[in-house]
Parts: sequence; C-alpha cells; structure tokens
Amino acid sequence: MVILGIDPGLAQTGWGVVGVETQRFKRVASGVVRTKAGEVTEERIHYIANEIGVVAQTYNVDIISMEDIFFARNVSSALTVAKVIGAIIQQISSQNLPIRLFTPLQIKLAVTGYGTAEKHQVQEMVRLLLKLENLPRPDHVADSLAAAICLAHNLGSESRLKR
Amino acid sequence: MVILGIDPGLAQTGWGVVGVETQRFKRVASGVVRTKAGEVTEERIHYIANEIGVVAQTYNVDIISMEDIFFARNVSSALTVAKVIGAIIQQISSQNLPIRLFTPLQIKLAVTGYGTAEKHQVQEMVRLLLKLENLPRPDHVADSLAAAICLAHNLGSESRLKR
Repeated sequence: MVILGIDPGLAQTGWGVVGVETQRFKRVASGVVRTKAGEVTEERIHYIANEIGVVAQTYNVDIISMEDIFFARNVSSALTVAKVIGAIIQQISSQNLPIRLFTPLQIKLAVTGYGTAEKHQVQEMVRLLLKLENLPRPDHVADSLAAAICLAHNLGSESRLKR
Repeated sequence: MVILGIDPGLAQTGWGVVGVETQRFKRVASGVVRTKAGEVTEERIHYIANEIGVVAQTYNVDIISMEDIFFARNVSSALTVAKVIGAIIQQISSQNLPIRLFTPLQIKLAVTGYGTAEKHQVQEMVRLLLKLENLPRPDHVADSLAAAICLAHNLGSESRLKR
C-alpha cells in the first residue's frame, strides 16, 4: 500500500509518499509545495491542491492522510490552512482517491505512542521507522511522513478489529 | 455579465445567479446545496464543491463571488466553513473561472452603502435591487445574492477607475 501524507500550509505544504508492507515503512519520495507571499491567496490555494493532485497521480498512491487543523492561537492563519485543506480534499476526491484527516494529537499518539511527545521526538520516530540517516527537512516534510505513518497504524488497527 | 454568488456553509451553501447589465440586476436562478449531519465531513465538502461547479456550468457564469470568513466566535465551525471555501475555490479554479472573495463587511457596504446595516436591511436591499416580490429564503440564498451584487459593484468601480 502506498500512502501520501500531507502537512498543509499556504506558504509550504509538506508531502511524503510512504510504502507500507506488513508494518514495515519505506519512504518513496517527499517534498514541499511552496507558494509566494505576494501572490493572490486563491491562486496559491489552487496551485497547492493541483500540485498535490499531481504527486498523488505520479506515485500512484492508494490513499491520502492529511494533518487536520482544529484550533490555533492565530485564527486568521488557521482559517487559511483550513482553506488549503478544503482545496486538497476537493482535488483528491475528484481523482476518486480516499482521504483521511487526523489531528496533530492523533498523529503524535500513533507515531510515538504517547500524546505528550515533543515535536522532535515525533520526528526522530519518523526517522527511525523509515530508516533514514537524517531527519527529513524542512519540518513540514517530517510532519507529512508522520501523517502517513499515522494512517498506516490506523488501517492496521482497523484490519485487526475486523478479524 | 452573469455572476454566481455563494454563501458557503457545511449544512447549507446558498447560491444565486445574477445577471448584470449597466447596473441593473436580475435574478436568474438561486438555491441551496444541503448536506446531512450524519455524513463524513470530507464527503460533504466534496459534494458541495461539485454541486457549485455544476451550477456554474449550467448557468454559464462569468465569475464567482463568495462570502469569505475571517473570524468567528465558534472557531471549530469557522474552520469547517473555511474548508468548504477552499474546496469551492479549487473546483471553480479547475473550471478556469475567476473567483473573488469578500468579507461580510465588504458585502454589507456594497449592498447598502453603510457597514453598520442590519442583516434584514441587507436582505431588503437585495430584494429591491433584484425587483423581487418577496425576500429570498432561506437567508443563505439572500446572502449569496448579496455577494453577487457586491462583486458587480466592485467591478463597476474598477472599470470606472480604469477610464
């Protein structure tokens, strides 16, 4: 199974493609979609969603896992991230691919086993699980890979429940 | 020129198609896209954006005007509305149609001339400008028509400035 993890944002949207085979993970590819501050917000949102759609197609992914936003100190920037999330939902759904959203807490729990883990601990676990020499950079890439691993764990739990 | 106005929301997204000719307005069609509370949020968002895309195509609209969200007492529901907005941006942009967002204040100002107008005063102006016998119902429809009128006013100002 091939999972595309996404850490959405207007300036930088991280993405990471993870191959999963019986609880073993492999990074297939990863990167960042960047947009410039000076451009029209609606066009930036459209560009990001299109690029993620291209990534999903290029790597022939089976399912998408995206980090959700629930609350933020800066409401205005949170609303912008929510728009990016909505645009990606629309693009991915139009490509007839399934998409799941997870809160930062759910991702933290799935990757490290405890919800109070620090950000760098999550990233270190991502590095270990994917057997990478170095931490993926920038943070958005590591976060997108964490989202992908979170979905893999959840699908694992679901299939165990179904037995 | 044919403008599609949109008042976005998860349970109800109002839409109204307005024909504009030298500052005279005519309602062409209007309605509401409804989704059920029990369904998966991502599927509801996808459904709304698709339906709005169909409306834009059916009425051969030239441009879309959507009410934006900037702040809300209920952050969680505001984030959901922002996702709907993002999905509609993606759908409309994919159809190569231009889209503009306006704050509730901008719409109020454009329709009534003053930013402190009450909601029912905005709706009454919408009724008068469109020469409708009754107020469009539900409120989401009236609000979508107000968004369309707001864009018409703004385009009018822009073309005057360009002379």
